Amino acid sequence: MLDPRHSQDTIAAIATPPGDGGVGIIRVSGPRALDIARRIFRPANPAFTDFLPYRLHYGHITDADGTELDDVLCAHMPGPRSYTGESLIEINCHGGRAVLGAVMQEALNLGARLAERGEFTYRAFMNGRMDLSQAEAVAEMIHAPTKAAMHLAQVKLSGLLGTRISELRARLEGLRAQMAVAVDFPDEELECLSPEELIDTVEGVRGEIAELLKAVDRTRAWREGALAVLAGRVNAGKSSLMNALLGRNRAIVTDQPGTTRDYLEETLNLDGLTIRLADTAGIRATDDAVEAAGLTMGRELMDRADLVLLLMDGTASVDRDTLDAARRTGPDKGLAVLNKADLDGFDESNGAPLADLGFETVAVSAKTGAGLDHLASRIRERILKEAGQPDPDELAPNARQAAVLAKADRELADLSGDADAGIPYDLLSVRLETACDVLAGITGEIAASDVLNSIFDSFCIGK
Amino acid sequence: MLDPRHSQDTIAAIATPPGDGGVGIIRVSGPRALDIARRIFRPANPAFTDFLPYRLHYGHITDADGTELDDVLCAHMPGPRSYTGESLIEINCHGGRAVLGAVMQEALNLGARLAERGEFTYRAFMNGRMDLSQAEAVAEMIHAPTKAAMHLAQVKLSGLLGTRISELRARLEGLRAQMAVAVDFPDEELECLSPEELIDTVEGVRGEIAELLKAVDRTRAWREGALAVLAGRVNAGKSSLMNALLGRNRAIVTDQPGTTRDYLEETLNLDGLTIRLADTAGIRATDDAVEAAGLTMGRELMDRADLVLLLMDGTASVDRDTLDAARRTGPDKGLAVLNKADLDGFDESNGAPLADLGFETVAVSAKTGAGLDHLASRIRERILKEAGQPDPDELAPNARQAAVLAKADRELADLSGDADAGIPYDLLSVRLETACDVLAGITGEIAASDVLNSIFDSFCIGK
Repeated sequence: MLDPRHSQDTIAAIATPPGDGGVGIIRVSGPRALDIARRIFRPANPAFTDFLPYRLHYGHITDADGTELDDVLCAHMPGPRSYTGESLIEINCHGGRAVLGAVMQEALNLGARLAERGEFTYRAFMNGRMDLSQAEAVAEMIHAPTKAAMHLAQVKLSGLLGTRISELRARLEGLRAQMAVAVDFPDEELECLSPEELIDTVEGVRGEIAELLKAVDRTRAWREGALAVLAGRVNAGKSSLMNALLGRNRAIVTDQPGTTRDYLEETLNLDGLTIRLADTAGIRATDDAVEAAGLTMGRELMDRADLVLLLMDGTASVDRDTLDAARRTGPDKGLAVLNKADLDGFDESNGAPLADLGFETVAVSAKTGAGLDHLASRIRERILKEAGQPDPDELAPNARQAAVLAKADRELADLSGDADAGIPYDLLSVRLETACDVLAGITGEIAASDVLNSIFDSFCIGK
Repeated sequence: MLDPRHSQDTIAAIATPPGDGGVGIIRVSGPRALDIARRIFRPANPAFTDFLPYRLHYGHITDADGTELDDVLCAHMPGPRSYTGESLIEINCHGGRAVLGAVMQEALNLGARLAERGEFTYRAFMNGRMDLSQAEAVAEMIHAPTKAAMHLAQVKLSGLLGTRISELRARLEGLRAQMAVAVDFPDEELECLSPEELIDTVEGVRGEIAELLKAVDRTRAWREGALAVLAGRVNAGKSSLMNALLGRNRAIVTDQPGTTRDYLEETLNLDGLTIRLADTAGIRATDDAVEAAGLTMGRELMDRADLVLLLMDGTASVDRDTLDAARRTGPDKGLAVLNKADLDGFDESNGAPLADLGFETVAVSAKTGAGLDHLASRIRERILKEAGQPDPDELAPNARQAAVLAKADRELADLSGDADAGIPYDLLSVRLETACDVLAGITGEIAASDVLNSIFDSFCIGK
């Protein structure tokens, strides 16, 4: 979608979220940005002669007929010291749809075109204002579900991941140079790189890659939120439990446009960790085979879950469906919840068949709230496993970066093996070059246009 | 809700709409704003010594531990030359929920409190940065459904309505002064104001008030949007027509949080005019008496409508329910729509009973699209009546201001009558004073706190 041939276009977009708000911002970037601002902005200060860099000027946006559209603060950030690295205008308007639409229209009338998703950040990347890992961190900052996720993104936004990767690449490039010497001057033994030294360095780099990959898993729940699925029969009280948990831990979220689901999902905030809690009830209601379908049709959801809550009525013995679901889930990913602890007929031993399978069991009463805080804390702990709160300075690659790292690691593992097997350096050199190029995909020094497109397409328009 | 005793508080809010976006803005206003900014902002430029007024500084927001939360642009606008008239900080962050929440939290930790709805604008009003009509225009700008509505708000935002009202008040105050002279020095005939002169001036003011009140009606559809209701039997094709109209004229809208409706409603953009098109189908589906209920339960909706579209199957004679609905609606507020013009059995004379009642009739085919553009244009024309496009400089009071004007006008009408009846000036003077005070409610020079609260409660937080 993003076409470098269009990089001389002047682009414009509403940079703030859609909807009515106090303030809305329009950004215009590119060679014509300043000229457009000069034409549509009428300063309130009679002493104004032109935009001063980085200064908020108060005045009005007018249309071609001179009709005032809005009163605004307008600032010019000259390139290269701007977000995009180009001449950039920010217009701070009243935050209404009609207002922002009208001001945008004036910018478009004067030759700007509507920016594509992520195009401001794409330009920042193309103009060397940030590397690709920083550009990705911008989207991660914006979509961060928790403060912890935001910290993890901020570390990458500051460029630390890019720096670390560049440093690893530099070590591998150093090896390449040494190998080239060894190939060109095979007799100069003093200069020569021994296979042991080569393997040492490669394994050192692989160790650091392994650390980064560990951080991916350790921080996943913080970066992406986690999915917990409620399974169990209707009369076990799934919706009561869902509501009871929500009542204490509801997260403030807005729907993502375009997401449709065929199951109920609510978002919990468990002491700073965002957890989507899903119930398959929505599916079941559309089906005649009420009881069975809840478990059958929720299977796919349970497979995707980070944790499955197997809810049972603690006043009755466990039913076959729940037992089947438990066997499929396994105790590592399952937590047995014995509900109705407030009733006289409640008996913890009703949970024994699951306990025998190795399941952790928690007794609660969705009705009185007994045990719910403990359950919430167990859900949180089980999802985090031994991860705990992430280190604020942790370098946590995202899924794409993890895939790149894994690919580079495979290449390096093969390289080590080949070196150990005594394969000549001039052949090994190709693997080393491949590993370096793969790693360069993280910072974007080498990146295919389809990779760039898929990254920037995940942005919002206006960023 | 707004308590002037709290005016020394420092307030903070997220000023941009909720949701994920490229940019989010946090505003902090009050005596501690600058101090808070100095504590949480770490400038990127080593030469930075302090905030320069109205200048965007690039740097990071950090928490108390020095951990970077986000990289931002931050500006200080010293009072009184700021939106609120106080020391005001704007922090231009990445537009994510977690980011904005974390930065807000730092401001709150350092002694700011969460702003109430409209509190920034309330302070602007209290500090004399704008009169009350301008403050109201801020909310009207933000919520304007159309560009025309935005223009009408902008005229008021610029202060023209306040100026006009002040000018009318000045004329009435002038009369008061002349009446006082007449009362105090009854013998000085030369200086004396004759009842005819008094009535002349009062009627002159009333004439201008009448003009303003006419503008209220003339611009209502533009300012507020209009409601059109689809009535008719299920088999007449209501949902097909609704979808067909939407397909050509869908307006881009987002749901207002907190609005729930028991009927279907979609928003059309008919050549710049926003029209909510409602169908009572949602009600009917929950009822057993399917056919009748659609008309019965939609009655309240039809009463509120600006235009009722009576949809008929043009291949059949008109049914009793539709005829009843037509009689209740009357031809001034109704438009007969004869659907299924594509079918062989279609016969325009099936619409005759409504035409005989004086209804305008339009033939369409929701299926083929025939006649739909004509229908859309007729809906638009009928709703606008003779209003047409509003003059961009039109002064269009809102509902509250119209009520104030009507009240002042009643007082002035009584004053004219009393003067004509020869009632002494010292008694008339009270009416004049009342009229002046009522008018002062538009600019807010005199305004009860409950009036202020109800105005500013309609704002979003952060404005």
